[in-house]
Amino acid sequence: MALIVQKYGGTSVANLDRIRNVAHRVIRTREAGHDVVVVVSAMAGETDRLLNLAHQAAESPSEREVDVILATGEQVTSALLAIVLQDMGYKAKSYLGHQVKIVTDSVHGRARIQSVDSYRLLGDLREGIIPVVAGFQGEAEGGDITTLGRGGSDTTAVALAAALGADVCEIYTDVDGVYTTDPNIYDKARKLRRISYEEMLEMASLGAKVLQIRAVEFAAKYKVPLHVRSSFSDEEGTIVCEEDEEMEKAVVSGVTYDRNQSRIELIKVPDRPGVAAKLFQALSHASIPIDMIIQTSSSEGQYANLAFTVSKTDYPKALEIAREVARELGAQDVLSEEEVAKVSIVGIGMRSHTGVASKMFQTLANEGINIKMISTSEIKISCIIEPKYTELAVRALHDAFGLERGEG
Amino acid sequence: MALIVQKYGGTSVANLDRIRNVAHRVIRTREAGHDVVVVVSAMAGETDRLLNLAHQAAESPSEREVDVILATGEQVTSALLAIVLQDMGYKAKSYLGHQVKIVTDSVHGRARIQSVDSYRLLGDLREGIIPVVAGFQGEAEGGDITTLGRGGSDTTAVALAAALGADVCEIYTDVDGVYTTDPNIYDKARKLRRISYEEMLEMASLGAKVLQIRAVEFAAKYKVPLHVRSSFSDEEGTIVCEEDEEMEKAVVSGVTYDRNQSRIELIKVPDRPGVAAKLFQALSHASIPIDMIIQTSSSEGQYANLAFTVSKTDYPKALEIAREVARELGAQDVLSEEEVAKVSIVGIGMRSHTGVASKMFQTLANEGINIKMISTSEIKISCIIEPKYTELAVRALHDAFGLERGEG
Repeated sequence: MALIVQKYGGTSVANLDRIRNVAHRVIRTREAGHDVVVVVSAMAGETDRLLNLAHQAAESPSEREVDVILATGEQVTSALLAIVLQDMGYKAKSYLGHQVKIVTDSVHGRARIQSVDSYRLLGDLREGIIPVVAGFQGEAEGGDITTLGRGGSDTTAVALAAALGADVCEIYTDVDGVYTTDPNIYDKARKLRRISYEEMLEMASLGAKVLQIRAVEFAAKYKVPLHVRSSFSDEEGTIVCEEDEEMEKAVVSGVTYDRNQSRIELIKVPDRPGVAAKLFQALSHASIPIDMIIQTSSSEGQYANLAFTVSKTDYPKALEIAREVARELGAQDVLSEEEVAKVSIVGIGMRSHTGVASKMFQTLANEGINIKMISTSEIKISCIIEPKYTELAVRALHDAFGLERGEG
Repeated sequence: MALIVQKYGGTSVANLDRIRNVAHRVIRTREAGHDVVVVVSAMAGETDRLLNLAHQAAESPSEREVDVILATGEQVTSALLAIVLQDMGYKAKSYLGHQVKIVTDSVHGRARIQSVDSYRLLGDLREGIIPVVAGFQGEAEGGDITTLGRGGSDTTAVALAAALGADVCEIYTDVDGVYTTDPNIYDKARKLRRISYEEMLEMASLGAKVLQIRAVEFAAKYKVPLHVRSSFSDEEGTIVCEEDEEMEKAVVSGVTYDRNQSRIELIKVPDRPGVAAKLFQALSHASIPIDMIIQTSSSEGQYANLAFTVSKTDYPKALEIAREVARELGAQDVLSEEEVAKVSIVGIGMRSHTGVASKMFQTLANEGINIKMISTSEIKISCIIEPKYTELAVRALHDAFGLERGEG
């Protein structure tokens, strides 16, 4: 008998028929002899409707009050699922964030969970009750309602699984797992059976939007195995867990891409200490997140080139700041491209294999794709290229590293 | 400077324009130098929508979970009003029942308030914050969400006013006060300037649906003056407060009616102790509320007639029970009328005036209206008549007691 936390996303609880479908799945798990704690999101579209209402009330509604409004979405779903489970003959009980209780910091709209009380839920399980917890919400010290940001119900589920010592946290969503690359771009994409937390973090932050990043971090920290799967089928999905030998055999686990990037480069900046700091502090003050950063020295050793990428939405503001700083620093020029794409390969096997980077560069070269920037980490290599080559690059890399057959 | 609790009903907060209208009124009160605590209902129609959702999930959804769903209605309104007040430049803060905190018993769907903590609200007022409290909801011991039943926001407002020692509790609704009778039936109906708690209780329970009965009881108990008024005009409404000399001068304050009544009569019941008890215990076990009860003895002294009225919806069940009990008791017959009407006059002045009852009976007789049953209390006289005479009776009594001019 295992203890399982199941989280159902917005599309899985979009209407009463789907909520009944979820109830059947919960009951099947119970009938298989397991203890189940359920976490639910708001019905699909509900969070947007509520957010819209708040923004009709004022252009910049206070974050405290927006959280009060948004929290009602999950509140309704949790009670509806409890009602349906009871109607099917099972004991069930809804819980809101403050009832569990899930304590967070007081950063409204993107609060972080600080502690979870498992006392009441464990008591329910002992009495044969199925607790249905409203995801996405918590309570700050002082009693204010907080929300955890988009995808926050994933984090609620992982936090509960950690606090309860659950055997697995199942994340039910509208995709059936994590793929070697986007199946919409390449039909040879293969569903991964297992993937490490670290790889999942790199995949998620690179644009494979299956799981909230913070939920994966949380799972990694507390070693909670995640099972990402579809609520519309019975197929096994992808297990996200600690790395093992099997994973290490594969050099590359996935190819990801991001077409939403812009590139800015300061040319011939006088090369003295504090130059990079000056630029990136200015960008940070404007709350612009930077993705890649590359600095190269000119052959003479007196000048450096400083290049970085930002999200396309931040491009105009970032360019303005870059030009100002360039003038102050006495740089020769500022070059920029509003539209570039990033293609990356991810895999923990890279740590122990050589020649991975050169194989990537060669693969792109073979296709006539020029590389504008390169950035590497221990388990990831990213290249900035022209956007029109994105699909071609993804397919070529997927083939080159044998992802279709799982050779890596 | 006064401390004022203002409660706004569902039609007053039905959409964002009306919520802005409410905000303006709150601000006007603040700018006049008063402290304000606001209580809001759910947007008109929202409670029905949510209730419907719960009943789509299951035919008999659990009351605990229905309360969780219903409570979201007031939650959204309280945050929206806080946002609008902030947008207009004022400090405001929403509060849910459990945050205030409003402690109730655990009778879901019609919980009773047991205590209110005024600590946080008084702290807010000192800091110049306008607290906006979600009405209709509380928290039972153990942390479950409860709701107070239809019109429960009135009770929330009165309970807060009592706990805060407010000078007045203003109830904003879609009518502009309490009238001498229903203006839809008689256009000479006059708005009352002041009315006693007792009279208001008799008026409310007799069908003048302006205030939740429990709210009036609460106000009477803690001597909280109520001001019933319209949120769509600036006119003064009706003050409900302790009786004073002015009120006592008027013999009759209002004429009310109820067309939703049925009459059942047991004829020639052997007159011995326990006869009435047997009948009404049987009805009580079937959860049928009885309105009027009259017992008369036959001239011979061996038999009694037992008549009572029930709400029309309870008529079939009540008749069935009455026939059964009549058989057991050996009564001669059971007579019944599915449709009768009740017309009542209410007024605390009756206590010190004589001839009120005979004037009522004579007035009805003058119009050729036959009286089927009579029931009296200290401040009310009710007559059961044929439904088709309802309007005629109301108008004749209104004229006879000079209510148009306030003579009473």
